[in-house]
Amino acid sequence: MNGVRASMSNKAIIPVILSGGGGTRLWPMSRPECPKQFLALTGDDTMFQMTLARTLDPRHFAAPIIVANAAHVETVDAQLRGISATLLLEPCARNTAPAIALAALAAHDPASPLLVMPSDHVILDTPAFHAAIMAALPLVEQGWLATFGIAPTGPETGYGYIQAGAEIGDGVHKVERFVEKPDAVRAAEMIAGGDFAWNGGIFLFRADLYLGALATFAPDILAATQVAMDGARREGNRIYPDEAAFAASPSDSIDYAVMEKSPRVAVVPVAMGWSDVGSWDALFEIGGGEGVHTLTIDTVNSLIRSDGIRIHTVGVSDMIIVASGNDILIVPRGKSQDVKKIVEALNDSRRA
Amino acid sequence: MNGVRASMSNKAIIPVILSGGGGTRLWPMSRPECPKQFLALTGDDTMFQMTLARTLDPRHFAAPIIVANAAHVETVDAQLRGISATLLLEPCARNTAPAIALAALAAHDPASPLLVMPSDHVILDTPAFHAAIMAALPLVEQGWLATFGIAPTGPETGYGYIQAGAEIGDGVHKVERFVEKPDAVRAAEMIAGGDFAWNGGIFLFRADLYLGALATFAPDILAATQVAMDGARREGNRIYPDEAAFAASPSDSIDYAVMEKSPRVAVVPVAMGWSDVGSWDALFEIGGGEGVHTLTIDTVNSLIRSDGIRIHTVGVSDMIIVASGNDILIVPRGKSQDVKKIVEALNDSRRA
Repeated sequence: MNGVRASMSNKAIIPVILSGGGGTRLWPMSRPECPKQFLALTGDDTMFQMTLARTLDPRHFAAPIIVANAAHVETVDAQLRGISATLLLEPCARNTAPAIALAALAAHDPASPLLVMPSDHVILDTPAFHAAIMAALPLVEQGWLATFGIAPTGPETGYGYIQAGAEIGDGVHKVERFVEKPDAVRAAEMIAGGDFAWNGGIFLFRADLYLGALATFAPDILAATQVAMDGARREGNRIYPDEAAFAASPSDSIDYAVMEKSPRVAVVPVAMGWSDVGSWDALFEIGGGEGVHTLTIDTVNSLIRSDGIRIHTVGVSDMIIVASGNDILIVPRGKSQDVKKIVEALNDSRRA
Repeated sequence: MNGVRASMSNKAIIPVILSGGGGTRLWPMSRPECPKQFLALTGDDTMFQMTLARTLDPRHFAAPIIVANAAHVETVDAQLRGISATLLLEPCARNTAPAIALAALAAHDPASPLLVMPSDHVILDTPAFHAAIMAALPLVEQGWLATFGIAPTGPETGYGYIQAGAEIGDGVHKVERFVEKPDAVRAAEMIAGGDFAWNGGIFLFRADLYLGALATFAPDILAATQVAMDGARREGNRIYPDEAAFAASPSDSIDYAVMEKSPRVAVVPVAMGWSDVGSWDALFEIGGGEGVHTLTIDTVNSLIRSDGIRIHTVGVSDMIIVASGNDILIVPRGKSQDVKKIVEALNDSRRA
């Protein structure tokens, strides 16, 4: 990114890493006490650590703000491995719009660009990601709210889509419209059209202008998070927003609350080897095949992972087998979305 | 068996239960320290206990002699649950011919009939088993060595076969010949012939006449076991044959050492719901489907067992999934013989 920077403002980008998710789609490895972002699924580092590592270059990025569930503070602290960061610790989950509001209110310089990233996505091509950020930055300085549109690799029905309109900068388009998760026919039509991208939940905008957009489109969220931050308790780099005030905020996503409503939203289409690793099938697709604690014979096209239980297979094909703690999940490939049926049944039996 | 007894000699039959097996075909549940016979695979009782229970009626059966690996003595004792028995504790494994010789030498009355039974087979129809024993008994008194021929339910290639010759008593035939484990074509031919049965490893003969047959066909086995018993250490109901003497015995099966050589061998064909439970597939066939510690959704035609690890499946069909301790085996149905590949690989890695 050398040389590009000279033409821009001097404000470093503040990475905002959203670590509030407690997803169960990678059960039994992801659990409420240790969700996906804190697992080393694709290498030695966790998804959270790999997200951090993408925005460490001090020539471009300021110290990050981590917005996390307060219950995970020790995990976050340990996984930071000494990296300076501000920890914004949510007392409860209120979805992304309030979480990002906390970060915007915590930014030292209100005009700083915030790069908002989920903590549990894979991006294989970091230079492409950086180039997209740099492409968006001049328009962000001018007041646009930017989103990154993931170049689709197939007619997925599990993502929202973004239609790119007129080009307003080099590789940057005005958003024509957002489309909710489509059915298969609609997804195929959009892919064929060529001007749609997936909504990957990665954003770049100035902190003050995000707050301004909230004031216009979601004033209750702004009011609640402002009170929560005014009453926050601070301990070193840890900020604990006031619980009652934050709990009073509407729970809404940034997409619904702001992006789909604002007239000044830009999209940067980018192919960067992205995956949200939203299922065991997705992990298999990006090559997270076989781990330790396994002995496999005549076993093909399968994802086999364990953190302790010794898994032994023979003659197995196209299966997903994942062990964690004292639990093991066994499901055919292509069916890993059904893990939610298991999690629901377990929750039902605990309530019963 | 009421009424049948009157016509027979007064000598009670001594059940001889062979518990020396350390099979690994039901790994990971069966292990050297706890082989198949000591597992409750088909109900609340173990295979060993169900074998015992078939010959408890004091009108017909004397107290049993258990021939077991000395390492399993406490397990045997616990599983006897107070039943009187003589425990013959082998210092090492020398196959069935020497094991049965120990029992024959321990019989108080040398003319007593011994009913030799593996400890790890299923027999669903005990009355049919008893009727076959009573059918064989008169000929056994007259000096025949009897074997029970399991009525075949298909052209299995995993068993030895016995061809029945001329009828020499009611339902009892002279053995025409023994046939080793056949290939599939030969097995189908034998089944079509109608006069072949499986060799189930269950025998009935007088103790003295078995020793006599050993003297003729396997004198080294008789000599070694005689010395081992002469030098045995006795502690209550436990007999420990002399280790060096027993170790000096040739290791051979009763089939090779005696039955295939003696001219006076009888077979009683019997259909009694027999299974040697020689694989997880075999257990599935006799209905050992699903156990505790499992949560299955949309899962069919599968054997799923665990002694602790929580197994969760969704959308799985035709699989064998067995967890024990910290190990889990996953293999498609019909392939469970391949568990030996796993056990071999594990042994190789331990040696490496």
